[in-house]
Amino acid sequence: MASNTVGKVIKCRAAVAWEAGKPLVIEEVEVAPPQAGEVRLRILYTSLCHTDVYFWEAKGQTPLFPRILGHEAGGIVESVGEGVTHLKPGDQALPINPNAPLDKVCILSCGVCTGFGATVNVAKPKPGSSVAIFGLGAVGLAAAEGARISGASRIIGIDLFPNRFELAKKFGVTDFINPKDHDKPVQQVIAEMTNGGVDRAVECSGNIQAMASALECVHDGWGVAVLVGLPSKDDTFKTHPANFLSERTLKGTYYGNYKPRTDLPNVVEKYMKGELELEKFITHRLPFSEINKAFDYMLKGESIRCLIKMDE
Amino acid sequence: MASNTVGKVIKCRAAVAWEAGKPLVIEEVEVAPPQAGEVRLRILYTSLCHTDVYFWEAKGQTPLFPRILGHEAGGIVESVGEGVTHLKPGDQALPINPNAPLDKVCILSCGVCTGFGATVNVAKPKPGSSVAIFGLGAVGLAAAEGARISGASRIIGIDLFPNRFELAKKFGVTDFINPKDHDKPVQQVIAEMTNGGVDRAVECSGNIQAMASALECVHDGWGVAVLVGLPSKDDTFKTHPANFLSERTLKGTYYGNYKPRTDLPNVVEKYMKGELELEKFITHRLPFSEINKAFDYMLKGESIRCLIKMDE
Repeated sequence: MASNTVGKVIKCRAAVAWEAGKPLVIEEVEVAPPQAGEVRLRILYTSLCHTDVYFWEAKGQTPLFPRILGHEAGGIVESVGEGVTHLKPGDQALPINPNAPLDKVCILSCGVCTGFGATVNVAKPKPGSSVAIFGLGAVGLAAAEGARISGASRIIGIDLFPNRFELAKKFGVTDFINPKDHDKPVQQVIAEMTNGGVDRAVECSGNIQAMASALECVHDGWGVAVLVGLPSKDDTFKTHPANFLSERTLKGTYYGNYKPRTDLPNVVEKYMKGELELEKFITHRLPFSEINKAFDYMLKGESIRCLIKMDE
Repeated sequence: MASNTVGKVIKCRAAVAWEAGKPLVIEEVEVAPPQAGEVRLRILYTSLCHTDVYFWEAKGQTPLFPRILGHEAGGIVESVGEGVTHLKPGDQALPINPNAPLDKVCILSCGVCTGFGATVNVAKPKPGSSVAIFGLGAVGLAAAEGARISGASRIIGIDLFPNRFELAKKFGVTDFINPKDHDKPVQQVIAEMTNGGVDRAVECSGNIQAMASALECVHDGWGVAVLVGLPSKDDTFKTHPANFLSERTLKGTYYGNYKPRTDLPNVVEKYMKGELELEKFITHRLPFSEINKAFDYMLKGESIRCLIKMDE
């Protein structure tokens, strides 16, 4: 990016969502120079996640269009606004982080961190413990990866798509339950498999029934369930309060409780050292011009993460 | 108690609940000698709490009558069954604990420990923090006492009986809210009083609305709400799941998470050292023969604890 763009309005390509659920339209947009405390990034890679789908479908909240999606991004600092001292033009940056291969690490910036962080920072399973993961999309697989790294010995994945189990094994999932295969509630199936309940549960589907099941499948006395998935606007979480009185804990988390600027460099560090595997999350790659295909892959449950290269 | 009762069936006076909500009838009952692992106690003092009322009214569970209530008791070991080595005849004992004045400490064995423990063991407020207590009966006052001892600087009591505030001040309650005085939800009143929410909330009323308010009145990001009160059988806890996703935690506790035999001696110790004040919980005293009056006091909200002396 030429330095003569500094302080000027620039023209960029963007995939614009004009209407709920309609294909994005790639067009030229103007981007203002960064204001005080802001940074302007040249995005090199991005990815899509269900959070994009959530805002694009606009079922769960007040619709807001036109909008430009793409928060799982990585790029290069083009220019900085007044008062910004920790970044300079040319630095690699996620909307979050430095010093990492952007074609992998950009996907950290939402889904992986959310699921991985929910397990590692919030559920905190002990070595040898059992963990149930509801929903085996990218967030759920990242939650499983977090359980694997924490040393959990039994990781039970729950999903309505049986074909996800094979992939999930790579993320440490040891057992698989398809609720459709059982004529009793999944929490009861889990209790019977685990002598009373799992030590931890992480809900990554956003399904309101799964949220109650997550609470009810953890063991009395010490079980902790963590809610990660985004509910719909009109959903109500319901359970009998006795499910709490038996000394269970229910926590919610947003973005895995990570404070991005201070905590994420450590996660990137883990990836750089090989402790955290990101490659296995990337199931598809597409040029930016074909971004609408990435929505199709995701809606059909075919992709975990589709990496989108911006200059193609 | 003469030692010649050892191994024999003995006759005792008991206040028998024959029917839901009907006055107890004092009559003679037979008590079998203690079996292996059991201890037979001569009860000297007892107290009543809402747990007794709960089982006596039998609204919250399957009715079971006749039954003999009285779990907040203290007495002397009369004889022990096979294999009991940690107690011997003549020892002072709660159904829980040794070495304490039974006319005070017996009330520890349920209400005070439940509320006090819920705050100290589960909510764990930090010095200088804010705590909301829903329901200012004995359990709620004990929860407030726990917050006071933990160094909370603001303790907000919520109750429908405004006359409870004066007494509650003795337990450290600094602010009082009567939900009837406001035309908005109590969680909103609390948020406005505390710049976004309290650090901790402890629900001691058993009211299902109060349970949701307790979760919703704690601060985003770090707030912890603890459920203590017993719900009715058909109650459903309801809230929007977004109330969890903003990083709140909801925990339930049974008996303040105390493991009675190992943890309660420390609580008695605190009382003996003067760190925990029990006298202020005792608002009434009655002879056993007038036990039904103790139910009246409790149902009218007049008593915190009524101490019942068994040999009168």
